[in-house]
Amino acid sequence: MSKPSRQLRLGAFLMQTGHHIAGWRHPDAQADASRNFRHYVELARLAEAAKFDAIFFADSSGVRSTHLGSLARTARSEFFEPLTLLSALAAVTERIGLIATVSTSFHEPFNVARKFASLDQISGGRAGWNLVTSSSTSEAHNFNLDELPDHASRYQRAAEFHDVVLGLWDSWDDDAFPRDKASGIYLDTEKLHVLEHRGDFFKVRGPLNVSRSPQGRPVVVQAGASESGRELAARTAEVIFVAHQTFDEAKAFYADIKGRLPRYGREADDVKIMPGIFPVVGSTQAEAEEKFEQLQALVDPVVGVALLSSVIGGVDLSAYDVDGPIPDLPETNGPKSRQHLLVDLARRDKLTIRQLYLRIAGARGHQQVVGTPQSIADQLQQWFEEGGADGFNIMAPYFPGGLTDFVDLVLPELRRRGLFRTEYEGRTLRDHFGLKRPARGSYP
Amino acid sequence: MSKPSRQLRLGAFLMQTGHHIAGWRHPDAQADASRNFRHYVELARLAEAAKFDAIFFADSSGVRSTHLGSLARTARSEFFEPLTLLSALAAVTERIGLIATVSTSFHEPFNVARKFASLDQISGGRAGWNLVTSSSTSEAHNFNLDELPDHASRYQRAAEFHDVVLGLWDSWDDDAFPRDKASGIYLDTEKLHVLEHRGDFFKVRGPLNVSRSPQGRPVVVQAGASESGRELAARTAEVIFVAHQTFDEAKAFYADIKGRLPRYGREADDVKIMPGIFPVVGSTQAEAEEKFEQLQALVDPVVGVALLSSVIGGVDLSAYDVDGPIPDLPETNGPKSRQHLLVDLARRDKLTIRQLYLRIAGARGHQQVVGTPQSIADQLQQWFEEGGADGFNIMAPYFPGGLTDFVDLVLPELRRRGLFRTEYEGRTLRDHFGLKRPARGSYP
Repeated sequence: MSKPSRQLRLGAFLMQTGHHIAGWRHPDAQADASRNFRHYVELARLAEAAKFDAIFFADSSGVRSTHLGSLARTARSEFFEPLTLLSALAAVTERIGLIATVSTSFHEPFNVARKFASLDQISGGRAGWNLVTSSSTSEAHNFNLDELPDHASRYQRAAEFHDVVLGLWDSWDDDAFPRDKASGIYLDTEKLHVLEHRGDFFKVRGPLNVSRSPQGRPVVVQAGASESGRELAARTAEVIFVAHQTFDEAKAFYADIKGRLPRYGREADDVKIMPGIFPVVGSTQAEAEEKFEQLQALVDPVVGVALLSSVIGGVDLSAYDVDGPIPDLPETNGPKSRQHLLVDLARRDKLTIRQLYLRIAGARGHQQVVGTPQSIADQLQQWFEEGGADGFNIMAPYFPGGLTDFVDLVLPELRRRGLFRTEYEGRTLRDHFGLKRPARGSYP
Repeated sequence: MSKPSRQLRLGAFLMQTGHHIAGWRHPDAQADASRNFRHYVELARLAEAAKFDAIFFADSSGVRSTHLGSLARTARSEFFEPLTLLSALAAVTERIGLIATVSTSFHEPFNVARKFASLDQISGGRAGWNLVTSSSTSEAHNFNLDELPDHASRYQRAAEFHDVVLGLWDSWDDDAFPRDKASGIYLDTEKLHVLEHRGDFFKVRGPLNVSRSPQGRPVVVQAGASESGRELAARTAEVIFVAHQTFDEAKAFYADIKGRLPRYGREADDVKIMPGIFPVVGSTQAEAEEKFEQLQALVDPVVGVALLSSVIGGVDLSAYDVDGPIPDLPETNGPKSRQHLLVDLARRDKLTIRQLYLRIAGARGHQQVVGTPQSIADQLQQWFEEGGADGFNIMAPYFPGGLTDFVDLVLPELRRRGLFRTEYEGRTLRDHFGLKRPARGSYP
């Protein structure tokens, strides 16, 4: 079989004890992952040895859950600040990309530009910034706010925040610093560019106090799926992480985003779309299902019911029989479509409350694949080859076992099919993703 | 000689190419230090092998110099963001303390609390926060401000910022996280403490999403010398970095700070006072002076005159003969006392402009010691034993040579006198400094 030139991009989405809500209770899970730096060193090195494009960290600027009973039974209340963690991991890895989420809602662009520029220097060009807006009131409460700004305002701020950060990253030409001891000229002031940004949300003069980064600028990643999110991503994102349940959804999103690019003078290859995949791998289908059931059995009903109550819009289901049907629900202020989809699903499949929460306990809205290396590779290949994805962000159910399963079982199958690298081709995150190094002053 | 129980505390104040303004031009200086992570790894390991209590980084949220000619000839325009750098260094060191400066003027307390708490976890209890206020307008211009808030307001914000950060660091009891797989109880909600801070500058609900740190909380360091700075330090600082020119100044400051402590229920030992020392070491006095002259000869007059112009309050001296006397100066808005001190010095010693700027080119207001290991040890010992210091922050003229000189020549002499450790006694920065691990809920 000849090797196809287009290769899958793979991210290892690391998240404390694992992506399954009960993953921390798995016998092989590292229960204290949230405060165990050595654990992350092992995961990062595992992902690097497996030639993943990047490791990826989500973020939340606070403890989101307000349901104490559920909070007590999940591993979501403590975690390392992702840039601090990634900077430390940069020192003990050589090649793998390092992507951290930082919200535009509760930071200043100068600080964010500086930190990612520094990380890019420290790591030799491996930094990526996952630009998000924050949508949780409990986070807003940690930043002087009683309520979140509305969705539109958050996205306006995010767009301007992005532009300020990119402008600051372009403060210096690549060769601005001769550092010539003999003449005493450290920098060439002709190659210094002061930003002088004055916008609706920010006034930032610049320049940045970090030289231009090895990969021109850090890679910009996004995850927004709303209309505002898609439009911002089409203009500015280089990588998009996204959650889909079905191939049809993935294909529609992929076509939609790639279709928006020409409007901004961008080409299809300038943006890599990477859905999240929650894999449970067994050597047989039965073994995979058994592994999944083992995790599902660990979901405490208090956690499951609170999760479901939250997802369907804040309706408290704790008073109902967990093994009975979903009650008729009042209208709520929550996201209507998610609530209706779930309730319709429960009615159609005659699901109990327990059965319904188990449907969402694992992949948190991402595609859940429970199968053999062959069947999982089949699905990834279909999405990849038929217009659903440029790659995937792998969300292991628990760590480290869920990730080693994917590495040991699925990656060899993908490699056999010529879909994934056996060695890094380049040194920077842009090299891995096949993204061009931008010229200074060229903005999306 | 019996070993005295009280031991010197020593910090290695790392700063790009070095503390001397022309240090980057020294033949042995690492000219690209500002973007060379390996250089910092070597310095951190050198300091750790020498058993320094900590490495220390200053910070500036922008390029401060507005004089382009001088900016072009100094290595002060690019540097790593200190927390990013320290996090990376945490991964390649084992014992040495890690102190970074973060300004209270341009950050949010929740973010700062999180980052230092994360660094403390990652490093196994070695983090310290140098709490400062920012005093440069060019920094304010990067954070939506046309002017800095006034001095009093900056200190009020700093004091409240400190209290919020300490409150967040106390969000969880030490044993709040049983993480018990069998029962499914990850955390004990009785051991969670929500802050609910509402003050003049900040509304922060909490809790912090990082568990209590290995050393209870990171060490709080300060450097303010004004009346407001001293009072804040007396209440809140555990370590004070300070600049003195003479032993009398050091002694007066030391007595003043230690005298303020009882008012806050604190003891003399609860705060370590560490003046900066700029050492130039030679095996003979003549060799030391020759080394210093070599550095001084590298100061470009454009840099020297701009530095002097800035220090005397913004009066432009570039039109005057650099080898002529200081002209009569108009009254300015700058800090009067510094201007008068320098002009008085120039008049008294009949200094030219060049001679005067060379007086301030090295140590930037800190004590400059040019001498033999014995004479330098004599001075450190006098300050230490006669009420001027609990230790020193060592500011090498250039890196790595200026630091290796101190390590190879002065430290053996200090050890011979029983003044400095030969091995770390403990694991955390608090252990090194001899600071108590605070109980949760005990605030300064």
